[in-house]
Amino acid sequence: MADAVLREPAAPAGLPDSPGTHKVVIVGGGFGGLAAAQAIVRRKTADRSIHVTLIDRNNHNLFQPLLYQVATAALGSNDIALPIRAVFRNRRGVEIMMADVTGIDRGRRMVELAGLAPVAYDTLVLATGSIYSWFGHDDWVARAPALKTLDDALGLRNRLLDAFERAELCDDPAETRRLLTFVVVGAGPTGVEMAGAIAELAHTTLDRDFRRIRPSTSRIVLCDAGPHVLAAFPRRLSDYAARRLQSLGIELRLGAGVEAIDAGGVTAGGERIEAECVFWAAGTEATPVAKWLGVEAGHHGLVAVQPDCSLPGDPAIFVIGDAASLAGPDGRPLPGLGAVAKQQGTYVGRLIAERLRTAGGRGSAAPAKPFRYRNWGQLAMVGGSSAVADFGWLRLTGFAAWLVWSAVHLMLLVSARSRVVVYVNWVWAWLTYSRGARVITRLPPSDRPGARA
Amino acid sequence: MADAVLREPAAPAGLPDSPGTHKVVIVGGGFGGLAAAQAIVRRKTADRSIHVTLIDRNNHNLFQPLLYQVATAALGSNDIALPIRAVFRNRRGVEIMMADVTGIDRGRRMVELAGLAPVAYDTLVLATGSIYSWFGHDDWVARAPALKTLDDALGLRNRLLDAFERAELCDDPAETRRLLTFVVVGAGPTGVEMAGAIAELAHTTLDRDFRRIRPSTSRIVLCDAGPHVLAAFPRRLSDYAARRLQSLGIELRLGAGVEAIDAGGVTAGGERIEAECVFWAAGTEATPVAKWLGVEAGHHGLVAVQPDCSLPGDPAIFVIGDAASLAGPDGRPLPGLGAVAKQQGTYVGRLIAERLRTAGGRGSAAPAKPFRYRNWGQLAMVGGSSAVADFGWLRLTGFAAWLVWSAVHLMLLVSARSRVVVYVNWVWAWLTYSRGARVITRLPPSDRPGARA
Repeated sequence: MADAVLREPAAPAGLPDSPGTHKVVIVGGGFGGLAAAQAIVRRKTADRSIHVTLIDRNNHNLFQPLLYQVATAALGSNDIALPIRAVFRNRRGVEIMMADVTGIDRGRRMVELAGLAPVAYDTLVLATGSIYSWFGHDDWVARAPALKTLDDALGLRNRLLDAFERAELCDDPAETRRLLTFVVVGAGPTGVEMAGAIAELAHTTLDRDFRRIRPSTSRIVLCDAGPHVLAAFPRRLSDYAARRLQSLGIELRLGAGVEAIDAGGVTAGGERIEAECVFWAAGTEATPVAKWLGVEAGHHGLVAVQPDCSLPGDPAIFVIGDAASLAGPDGRPLPGLGAVAKQQGTYVGRLIAERLRTAGGRGSAAPAKPFRYRNWGQLAMVGGSSAVADFGWLRLTGFAAWLVWSAVHLMLLVSARSRVVVYVNWVWAWLTYSRGARVITRLPPSDRPGARA
Repeated sequence: MADAVLREPAAPAGLPDSPGTHKVVIVGGGFGGLAAAQAIVRRKTADRSIHVTLIDRNNHNLFQPLLYQVATAALGSNDIALPIRAVFRNRRGVEIMMADVTGIDRGRRMVELAGLAPVAYDTLVLATGSIYSWFGHDDWVARAPALKTLDDALGLRNRLLDAFERAELCDDPAETRRLLTFVVVGAGPTGVEMAGAIAELAHTTLDRDFRRIRPSTSRIVLCDAGPHVLAAFPRRLSDYAARRLQSLGIELRLGAGVEAIDAGGVTAGGERIEAECVFWAAGTEATPVAKWLGVEAGHHGLVAVQPDCSLPGDPAIFVIGDAASLAGPDGRPLPGLGAVAKQQGTYVGRLIAERLRTAGGRGSAAPAKPFRYRNWGQLAMVGGSSAVADFGWLRLTGFAAWLVWSAVHLMLLVSARSRVVVYVNWVWAWLTYSRGARVITRLPPSDRPGARA
């Protein structure tokens, strides 16, 4: 596969020969896009100026691994979001656009935007990530919301806390039971972390807050079509996680694919579960990048890329992160982790800067080394003060893994202010078993009457 | 006026004679309602049990004085909100209901709720506060949102930050100008603080974040129908605030009542101001308490109360805080401050506990002393690191007042966690001129196209 790279020209024909500005457009301000922009501005050479345009539909970079803590009222929404403009405020060569991409005109080298003039590129980096997929069941989207954006997290939190409030006021025992049943669909890291956090919220934090209901009697059900929780982890860790989740009182339904989701609850693996709150953490698919590019989409809509992350046949376009499909050294596709996206972003940013340096006439045109993923391991919280950590050479479970999990996530937070605030919130929660963010910011429009008290 | 109190029976005829539980219902979980509930549970006597039901449409107590900092991206929404249940989690005699009150049946002593069975009371405390009033212009409500709830604050923040984003992408100079014009209607403390915070955001925090626009050229206009800013403050402080606001580049339009608000902007005092963002901080009125009680509403819908905060002719009902009208020792009505509501809540809570103690047969039935407001002064921020403080005997302006302002507000925050987090955010902002919370949580539904990048 390295051969394919060696055959790529070091300074592709597509790059403009004029000594003017080279326009790099990056779509997506997640781990991948941000890393690419940072790598370019750090490597920018004096003899050739690069202009970077970073386009995202949101104004912030979101630290997805902690999003479930916003949804379960442990953290505030601002603690894990960083305004993208703040990252590049002192880099005059980087421009941020908050806009929606609608397509790509590869012939004219233009990125098309909703309601705005298209933006021209010389090099394009697509780092648009993945979106949740409800397996074609459009009617499930509203009933079983997923966790991808800040707005999702605040919506989930409102829904979760509101269920307890409504149960407290409910006279019908069956309806109370239904309100206090929480179903999480999908037992990957997000689903496991959500289920664990809901269990902690219900069984510990909220238990003394109510007078008529006992939140500790809440049912939390985690279902997955596959036979294991955390299927991407080694079996030993996966089994530990399953035992740990059960000890937290979470009911596991493995091998139980979801058959129906309606206003009353869920049917999974033939079993009917009456539940008010159903959260979706199952399938994801790539954003419509393949459609934009006019290439064939692979499994889950992913775009297959060359070992240097460029599009086959078009070295001016890179696809990185969750939107791209690239095999690791073992031949298996790289996982959809922030770490992969970040490393690919840094790799591609350096590659672009290097191409321009050599194209500018200084130095020799060395062929690009293929991207190599450095596996820093994977982590997942499993309730309270417990986690699983897989570093390949080292596998941890329980409290030790949780300590590693906490340290790694604090380190990975982009802003120092976030680190301090998240740390304060965690220490506080750990000391007091309390969750400061259990605030319902707005009432679900359909559920509550409109009269103003 | 004290005579009116002396004529009130100490243990009113309305109180039940049975030795059963005395039911106190408190409507509103703001400063007043929370203080009343806390005073009752602290004074609860052993020989007579009291059951307190606190009803609020939100699940949290909101620290209103810092709400403008959430709206202007200095603080997160959870930093100033405290779950009401968390305050009373260890008080079994206090029950919280998240519900909407629709009316009061004084004959049957019932509080009527939307979609729920009514709740019976022996003693009722109404602490429902005030709501904004657009002087009957219903079409202004959506165009010029006000700042009362967390949801309002997040909506205002989204609107404010989105205006800068849209200006950056705008090709039409007149429209760019309009997007970068911010009008605040009403020059009381909230309006002055909003205008000052917007000026700081535009002129300092955001200035280097954009490439095509210069946020420092934003117009911020503060208009008021009256001749002075901060009219409730002594003239010297009011004049200082006006000079300070002008030095921050804020255009004052005093004596300029608003005549029209439409999608394009505002007309005030005969002048047309094209502006995208218009924020309302003008008239307030009481919640519909007078209507619920079937009594005549006074000025701004307030309910006139006896010197012991009870309703004339019905000693089982108290109205406190912004919903009540009561004259101070100087004969002027008490101001609509959190401090007044809090002191009235504590006073009424103690009075209720005392009444029951004496009604229970222990001790003598001493007549209730009238409520006396202890004036701890009033404070307002006027931009950056400057404030005005009026303690009667001491009047401060500028940095000294700001230090007092900061200390007082940190102290008044209900939870210790909030204190730490708010302090970290403030120190951070002060050191870095940055605002960590400038995150757009969701896109305004009507303004932006729906395509997903």
